[in-house]
Amino acid sequence: MASKKCGKQTIKFTNPVNIISSYSIVGEKEGQGNFKEYYDYILKDDKFGEKTFEHAERKLIEHSIVHAIERAHLNIDDIDLMLAGDLLNQITSSSFTARQLKTSFVGLYGACSTMAESLAVGACMIDGNFFNNVVCATGSHFSSAERQYRFPLELGNQRPPTSQWTVTGAGCTILSNRSMRKCNQITMATFGKVTDYGITDVNNMGAAMAPAACDTIIAHFEDTKTTPDDYDLILTGDLGKLGSELFMDLMEHNGYKLGKNYNDCGQMIFDNNQKTYQGGSGAGCSAAVINSYVMKKLEKGEIKSVLFAATGALLSSTSSQQGDSIPGICHAVVIKRSE
Amino acid sequence: MASKKCGKQTIKFTNPVNIISSYSIVGEKEGQGNFKEYYDYILKDDKFGEKTFEHAERKLIEHSIVHAIERAHLNIDDIDLMLAGDLLNQITSSSFTARQLKTSFVGLYGACSTMAESLAVGACMIDGNFFNNVVCATGSHFSSAERQYRFPLELGNQRPPTSQWTVTGAGCTILSNRSMRKCNQITMATFGKVTDYGITDVNNMGAAMAPAACDTIIAHFEDTKTTPDDYDLILTGDLGKLGSELFMDLMEHNGYKLGKNYNDCGQMIFDNNQKTYQGGSGAGCSAAVINSYVMKKLEKGEIKSVLFAATGALLSSTSSQQGDSIPGICHAVVIKRSE
Repeated sequence: MASKKCGKQTIKFTNPVNIISSYSIVGEKEGQGNFKEYYDYILKDDKFGEKTFEHAERKLIEHSIVHAIERAHLNIDDIDLMLAGDLLNQITSSSFTARQLKTSFVGLYGACSTMAESLAVGACMIDGNFFNNVVCATGSHFSSAERQYRFPLELGNQRPPTSQWTVTGAGCTILSNRSMRKCNQITMATFGKVTDYGITDVNNMGAAMAPAACDTIIAHFEDTKTTPDDYDLILTGDLGKLGSELFMDLMEHNGYKLGKNYNDCGQMIFDNNQKTYQGGSGAGCSAAVINSYVMKKLEKGEIKSVLFAATGALLSSTSSQQGDSIPGICHAVVIKRSE
Repeated sequence: MASKKCGKQTIKFTNPVNIISSYSIVGEKEGQGNFKEYYDYILKDDKFGEKTFEHAERKLIEHSIVHAIERAHLNIDDIDLMLAGDLLNQITSSSFTARQLKTSFVGLYGACSTMAESLAVGACMIDGNFFNNVVCATGSHFSSAERQYRFPLELGNQRPPTSQWTVTGAGCTILSNRSMRKCNQITMATFGKVTDYGITDVNNMGAAMAPAACDTIIAHFEDTKTTPDDYDLILTGDLGKLGSELFMDLMEHNGYKLGKNYNDCGQMIFDNNQKTYQGGSGAGCSAAVINSYVMKKLEKGEIKSVLFAATGALLSSTSSQQGDSIPGICHAVVIKRSE
């Protein structure tokens, strides 16, 4: 059988990988941002009725999955596989969610690139005829991320101007081989390499991740012989404002001038008046944007094709304390509206 | 095209998924254990020439991958995808290794089940014609695990009798669609569910993981209509001695009496005189055992089929501190000698 590999890092799917459902949930602050009309659920209480922020993060992911399954008119028994990960140590938000859902579970770790990572692996699982319905999900919580990666909120530390605001939110996409008349589909996936330009400032994630976005997106264009003009939307996430500028500079330096069809989930998610400095970050950032605004724009036919390239910074507190620089990764998928 | 799914959780591979190379490396203590003649490399210095245990853990994984690639007569450019994960927060050992190798990287998290998780996902990637050569790897280090999950070694805490000893070691398997006359092959994979019987004692991981092993292995037998007698070796890992006993009891309670063809990587890896209490644990435990003793027994024809079911405890320090019980997972693959 012919290989589905195209170039060095890209897969072109030959069987339909249909997106039969998607769902997004965000915190109160995110719910006042630019996509407030697109989210499915906006929290009134950032703890979501739980005792800890970590338990709230779990509940966000679980809520997004349960409601995405319901929206697809499926039962949990119809789900063959759950692909998920998150930012917390040992991805406990995802593992404890999988415990509730009682379906086969493959835990992923790609930091803030997890939404694209799960879609890329999930699309392979559907295209290869291994499974019928696959859940892809991730999320993050501002308060659990702050105290794990930086400082307890109670300290009231000042945030430096290069910092981004970890999004409280989660998103879930259900991939399926179920035939659909008209739907969003994943047609290609580009699996990223780890890139590191030596950035050590943990408050400047955009700079750490921009080279990875550049590396994967150029690999995608070269593998597939496409250009930026072939997509209605090229969406990185979550480089933030500064990271996006660095990314565009790097792309231009490599001969790719990006136009108005380029944007970044981190840059887009908050309103400029919300004082998040460089914008949003966290695994929940691109998960919430792709599963709300982007999927709905595709459904309405306002855009027809998206190159979604989620980025992740692969550091830990320990690696930073031991003087390591911050490696970045970016995985990309192409989402198209079927004819 | 026909689905490759068999029952609810199992995939039967229809294209050959060949194991073209495997490599194991362990620490000094492990090198005095039961499989000392089977390992490819035994450290004389647990820090492997590095300044920190965390950096040593990275070097273990990198060493195993580089040498497995060399053994397969491949260059790093021939590798399409690296699937790896480890126990450290944000799987930094794997991510930093991927940075060195400059190949597409999908980070996984399955705690001590990662070796089987990577083989199961990797086999799908080969069988589905997505990639030609896939690296599956994991590892762990006693000293980095102790200080992350339990206490700094300098405190000299006593270990309780139910505890296991985190293995310093790593293992790598290379999966390929390259045709081979006679080789070890992955023929099936069973993706596990998260199981939790309410164990909260972080020094009794065997008890936390035994129900997951039972759940996945029974699902495997039911999905594939096989019985324990159909395998020359059924190998859990890393339940340890107590965990294995609990597992056998649970299996018997469910109508499966396991015989002499059952064993556990954690139970087997150390010599009884090494005072590790319940035996070995850590992602490196089953990775080292499968990529040394087991692969060589298959190569020599002393056994023909193995059901390898690696187990993982999906806790974090935070989840335990917040009073959560310990969820377990187990992924299984069938490895056979081709005719």
